[in-house]
Amino acid sequence: MRADGTRSRSRFSVLSSSLSSPLTQEDILKHDLDRLMAERNLDAIVVEGPDGLESANPDYNYFVGGRHIPGLIIKKRGEPTMLLHSPWEQNEAEQTGLALVSLNRWNLREILQEFPDRLEARVEHRRRIFTDLGVRGRVGIYGTVKAGPFFALMARLAQQIDGLEIVAELDRDVISMARLTKDADEVERMRAVGRKTCAVLQVAVDFICTGWIDGGSVRGVDGAPLTIGDVRRVMLREIAAQGLETPAGMIISQGRDAGLPHARGDDAMPLRPGQAIVIDIFPREAGGGYFHDMTRTFAIGYAPPELQQAYNDVLGAFEMVTAAFEAGAPTRKYQDMVCDYFEARGHDTIRRTYPIEEGYIHSLGHGLGLEVHEDLSFSSLVDRGDTIEPGAVFTVEPGLYYPSRGFGVRIEDTYYCAPDGHFESLTPFPKELVIRPYERD
Amino acid sequence: MRADGTRSRSRFSVLSSSLSSPLTQEDILKHDLDRLMAERNLDAIVVEGPDGLESANPDYNYFVGGRHIPGLIIKKRGEPTMLLHSPWEQNEAEQTGLALVSLNRWNLREILQEFPDRLEARVEHRRRIFTDLGVRGRVGIYGTVKAGPFFALMARLAQQIDGLEIVAELDRDVISMARLTKDADEVERMRAVGRKTCAVLQVAVDFICTGWIDGGSVRGVDGAPLTIGDVRRVMLREIAAQGLETPAGMIISQGRDAGLPHARGDDAMPLRPGQAIVIDIFPREAGGGYFHDMTRTFAIGYAPPELQQAYNDVLGAFEMVTAAFEAGAPTRKYQDMVCDYFEARGHDTIRRTYPIEEGYIHSLGHGLGLEVHEDLSFSSLVDRGDTIEPGAVFTVEPGLYYPSRGFGVRIEDTYYCAPDGHFESLTPFPKELVIRPYERD
Repeated sequence: MRADGTRSRSRFSVLSSSLSSPLTQEDILKHDLDRLMAERNLDAIVVEGPDGLESANPDYNYFVGGRHIPGLIIKKRGEPTMLLHSPWEQNEAEQTGLALVSLNRWNLREILQEFPDRLEARVEHRRRIFTDLGVRGRVGIYGTVKAGPFFALMARLAQQIDGLEIVAELDRDVISMARLTKDADEVERMRAVGRKTCAVLQVAVDFICTGWIDGGSVRGVDGAPLTIGDVRRVMLREIAAQGLETPAGMIISQGRDAGLPHARGDDAMPLRPGQAIVIDIFPREAGGGYFHDMTRTFAIGYAPPELQQAYNDVLGAFEMVTAAFEAGAPTRKYQDMVCDYFEARGHDTIRRTYPIEEGYIHSLGHGLGLEVHEDLSFSSLVDRGDTIEPGAVFTVEPGLYYPSRGFGVRIEDTYYCAPDGHFESLTPFPKELVIRPYERD
Repeated sequence: MRADGTRSRSRFSVLSSSLSSPLTQEDILKHDLDRLMAERNLDAIVVEGPDGLESANPDYNYFVGGRHIPGLIIKKRGEPTMLLHSPWEQNEAEQTGLALVSLNRWNLREILQEFPDRLEARVEHRRRIFTDLGVRGRVGIYGTVKAGPFFALMARLAQQIDGLEIVAELDRDVISMARLTKDADEVERMRAVGRKTCAVLQVAVDFICTGWIDGGSVRGVDGAPLTIGDVRRVMLREIAAQGLETPAGMIISQGRDAGLPHARGDDAMPLRPGQAIVIDIFPREAGGGYFHDMTRTFAIGYAPPELQQAYNDVLGAFEMVTAAFEAGAPTRKYQDMVCDYFEARGHDTIRRTYPIEEGYIHSLGHGLGLEVHEDLSFSSLVDRGDTIEPGAVFTVEPGLYYPSRGFGVRIEDTYYCAPDGHFESLTPFPKELVIRPYERD
């Protein structure tokens, strides 16, 4: 890797599936980083906290609690977690409760004078930090970064520091495993976000129901046809009013679009009675906190039999699978149950056909927390041996998609597996397909 | 790098300062990626667009225009830019105008069956993409990524593909250079954000001035002392009303805190007449667009002579340096001018002393656009030879900091260097220190 080619020993390693057996609850307790590090034979972990990423860096946010403190988290196994921060951020840093190390300790100007090449200077800066703080051996790397500068730094660092082995984990890594288990405070916040998210959806339903059905349209109080954009605006306003934000937008899709799971919906499209309308919202606490994720499918006024049947199948799958949840069970079991259920009712599934465009075409859910997709997988494609452990928060979202027939259906709640092993929906919202505005005589 | 140790040739390179001479305007025209690629001898560039990062991935957003399309940008030199996207995002992808490649083209399930190790499967998936699309030679990597998975993928990829050299640029890279030069549409948007940001600050000033000075406090219309939190709430509301958002918060700091450039300010602190209040706001278009960045320093009712003198020095530096701007001139020249100016008036500077805590302790400004800090540097510490070229948008923000004396002053506008070489402030807001609420008899 060195330009002079003198080193041949591999200086970094890559963990793909670091554990053969499923994790237990004890493994993934929030603060049990030492145990997770020991299992992966990690001597230290480094979480990058570059400026300007804030809530897009959940690994780092997990440690600094959403405060704006660009810097670096370093934890050696068996020792307290250190936060390396600019002296400019001293005030904020003190609020984290972490062991503080001011970056003033290393004189960047001296380093820059000694190493005129900027990359070499940056490598030397990091080398001094690692040396002075005793970071050596197998060091795991985490956080959200800029691809080029990070790769440049790490590749050089691995070449230049004897006894340093950079360990890059693909997934189920130390921090995502720690984040997977929510403690009581985190769950209480997520419950509140769930209630607020339901309030946002209720506002949308109430808004639609203040209109009236007029043949093929739904007219608002001013007589103009209601559109998807009208519903979206009402919901965005309520999201802000509830102290939430929605960095990745939302899905309000109707008819054929509802059969394309990621179509965001066309704001100009008028609402149509009897069509499937999928509303999928995934807001989080404003300023970058915990997410909620829920979906309901509605039909205004009435549902054609084909849509009602698909809805019944999805709701049936939802009720069947959530009634069967058991703490410690493999996620794969539930994805298979849902595939069995749908296949028995004549729907194709991603387990049977791939690529697939119609039927049950995705996985049952995903982990949820500081990111809308966290590291708990229900995939039919990849079986990592994931299990649902106490403390897990995840989505349950069976769906059926038939764009060629002009509809799709999805029902989604966020679920929590409590420490005592019981399961709780964090999404207190009814699951009724048909909503009824006024009808004019 | 291979586990079997059979390869010794370096498979990736790192560019620190890829160009010895300053870039010219022609070099950095928005769409002149081919020229920039040729200068760095890059055969292709790959911009990672992982899910869930959205506006935190400005390199990728630059291509997809803020649309939610997780995927990959690939551009070979001299060929159109390709967007690799999930078939689920087909609708959004069509709106980008880029050459579309559906990721359905590669059968992930087959790959996963053939390569049970998940990392190997991911490497194989990417290997097939690169092979099928003819991505080889020197390939630059860009975008915002998760540190571990990205490093794991790239390190393996560099080992396993013959003829592939991963090129990691530290800074002044192809895309940041392209982004640096704003075209007419981008500048028009940035002008509008500037006007709206000024409107937000005006609301704060108006709000303060509806209060009245009562001895050592400023009382609001209800008689309660106004606090920093009150001002922040008013500003946050106006930011939303203007169609802006502020992902990294804002600074409203008073007294000693104003002397600490990154102190966010204490919401519980009552406003005090005669104290320095630094308000630094950096909102962007809602949903992840262009930023503005401005700062004003205020004193309510009156300014003590020491604060007024520091303010005069900062304003003098601001006016001196902005009057001297010339297209094509090195940024370092202006940082030096400001250091000269302050040193002649008895203030210490970061050029003379490092680390430094009082005086002029930072650089004059930074590039601005889809990120609040873009790749144009005025640093005293590192001279990269940056020049101010037509199309550049950047901040000008001289300041003086004296926390030991209980104050700090900063004045900041966002500036634009037009194609004809003239300079324009995008921050139409007066620069007056003292603001006057009513005084009660």
